[in-house]
Amino acid sequence: MKEYVVGIDIGGTFTKFGFVDRDGKIFEEGSSPSDKFDKIEDYLANLFKDIKEREKNLEAPCKVIGVGIGAPNGNFYRGTIENAPNLNWKGIIPLAEMVNKYYDVPVRLTNDANAAALGEKVYGGAQGIDNFIMITLGTGLGSGIIVNGDLVYGHDGFAGELGHTNVEVDGRQCGCGNKGCLETYVSAPGIKRTVFELLAHDSRGSNLVKYSFDEMDSELIYNEAKKDDPVALKAFEITGKILGRKLADSVAHTSPKAIFLFGGLAKSGDYILKPTKKYLEEFVMGPFKGKVDVKPSQLMDRNVAVLGSSSLIWKDVK
Amino acid sequence: MKEYVVGIDIGGTFTKFGFVDRDGKIFEEGSSPSDKFDKIEDYLANLFKDIKEREKNLEAPCKVIGVGIGAPNGNFYRGTIENAPNLNWKGIIPLAEMVNKYYDVPVRLTNDANAAALGEKVYGGAQGIDNFIMITLGTGLGSGIIVNGDLVYGHDGFAGELGHTNVEVDGRQCGCGNKGCLETYVSAPGIKRTVFELLAHDSRGSNLVKYSFDEMDSELIYNEAKKDDPVALKAFEITGKILGRKLADSVAHTSPKAIFLFGGLAKSGDYILKPTKKYLEEFVMGPFKGKVDVKPSQLMDRNVAVLGSSSLIWKDVK
Repeated sequence: MKEYVVGIDIGGTFTKFGFVDRDGKIFEEGSSPSDKFDKIEDYLANLFKDIKEREKNLEAPCKVIGVGIGAPNGNFYRGTIENAPNLNWKGIIPLAEMVNKYYDVPVRLTNDANAAALGEKVYGGAQGIDNFIMITLGTGLGSGIIVNGDLVYGHDGFAGELGHTNVEVDGRQCGCGNKGCLETYVSAPGIKRTVFELLAHDSRGSNLVKYSFDEMDSELIYNEAKKDDPVALKAFEITGKILGRKLADSVAHTSPKAIFLFGGLAKSGDYILKPTKKYLEEFVMGPFKGKVDVKPSQLMDRNVAVLGSSSLIWKDVK
Repeated sequence: MKEYVVGIDIGGTFTKFGFVDRDGKIFEEGSSPSDKFDKIEDYLANLFKDIKEREKNLEAPCKVIGVGIGAPNGNFYRGTIENAPNLNWKGIIPLAEMVNKYYDVPVRLTNDANAAALGEKVYGGAQGIDNFIMITLGTGLGSGIIVNGDLVYGHDGFAGELGHTNVEVDGRQCGCGNKGCLETYVSAPGIKRTVFELLAHDSRGSNLVKYSFDEMDSELIYNEAKKDDPVALKAFEITGKILGRKLADSVAHTSPKAIFLFGGLAKSGDYILKPTKKYLEEFVMGPFKGKVDVKPSQLMDRNVAVLGSSSLIWKDVK
């Protein structure tokens, strides 16, 4: 009988899901709204109605052996979502337990960046690598740290929050309440903020003067960089410098063999990779120089969060 | 038959050793010079002559079941000392293999701060704690990171070098060759450098104006702080602020339950602990606030490095 894991990726607006087989092939992918329900019970009822509907299309005979979930502020130890700022449901949600009403199989959850790290390990470029770091660059900067082949969860289940390490005392205001967090510099909104700082300083020769703060995004900055826009190029250089310097700190912590970059900003290729590598090498301590690969995720165009979430189950079965 | 592990702590000037029993009691402690021998073979011959001499004093019948070694740039995976700047023997020394000529038992080695972390775990305040960080404050800043009950060695055996994370771009010159490393601010020489910066800015009311750079040390600064010397007090505040900010970054990496401070500077008690805790709480991300204990090592007055080195063997036997 063919076995599947339901991989679920809970985002602020949509929840994506799919049936993932042992080889990392995704079947019957789908999507369901996250933000339309004030009550978690209603959200889950709707989500699992959609999932069960899709399950009918799988070739019989088949069996769901587990559910893996990536969610903002997902806590692996407790199977809970805890005080997630981007979701409607406040406080501590006992999600794993609630999902068991729909599928009476093992349910595991963790945060989305941790899930991506597992996805890279089980199906992507980190196969066979036991010490690495995954960085997801989107509206924030997420991270998953793998040590000795396992995710680092820390004593409370919330380890791996490199987006909230400090770049500058009294630096940029972060959504988390602190100031100067890495993700306020290195993320899609972060590079936009850097463009605005640069324009304030010297806007000569830049096409980026045409856009409001609301209009501008990282893709637009990337497109201008490709046309050699001086401000766009400098913004990438600064973003990579900050990321490289902070990743040098991370290397001093766990000495990874590789660091994978995933997400929108990582798709800018060498514009972000080159300065990141250059400044990582500059700031990292001697014994680590020349040892750490910084490279794009190999799952860039696949549904890494659904895949990675399913790995929460598959990694122990494989 | 009573069993012992030979615990060895290799320092730049002296090598300390002792026979450690299962309960962490040290017998026949001794010390042997490190810096008098140009050839590693001669150093080891002399050291093990001293150790074997002491062994005769142990109550018979007894047995040495392993040798644990803490050494600068000690590599756990390879059993080597690699390019240690403070030792006479350059390049890569296959130490574990060489020690086997004297004791044909398992030999393990790691760096001194990792050994201290293990000592805290097996015999000190970290008993029963599976996620913590050990910081050793001396002429440098060493660190050992414990995740899921084990030391983090990383892919190359050199993980846990928090002393060489970056505090400031183009900051103070570090012995490692880089600039702005944490240990240039937070260590015995680091706080002295901060005193000199402060005196340059405003020396009014300070007794520290009487000492040359060579004469001043962290104990002297501590003694003046106890007499409310304004520069000494401010130097501790700044040192703790930098340490607290960088430890907040470390918490975001591995989410430890506790951070232990060990060594000369840590003996200054609240002068260093209070600002460290205060600024760790200020800079750490919301979900970690109020969760991390920062406290002095419980092995402060014991030979933690000899104890910790012996733990490399005992932890797998106990």
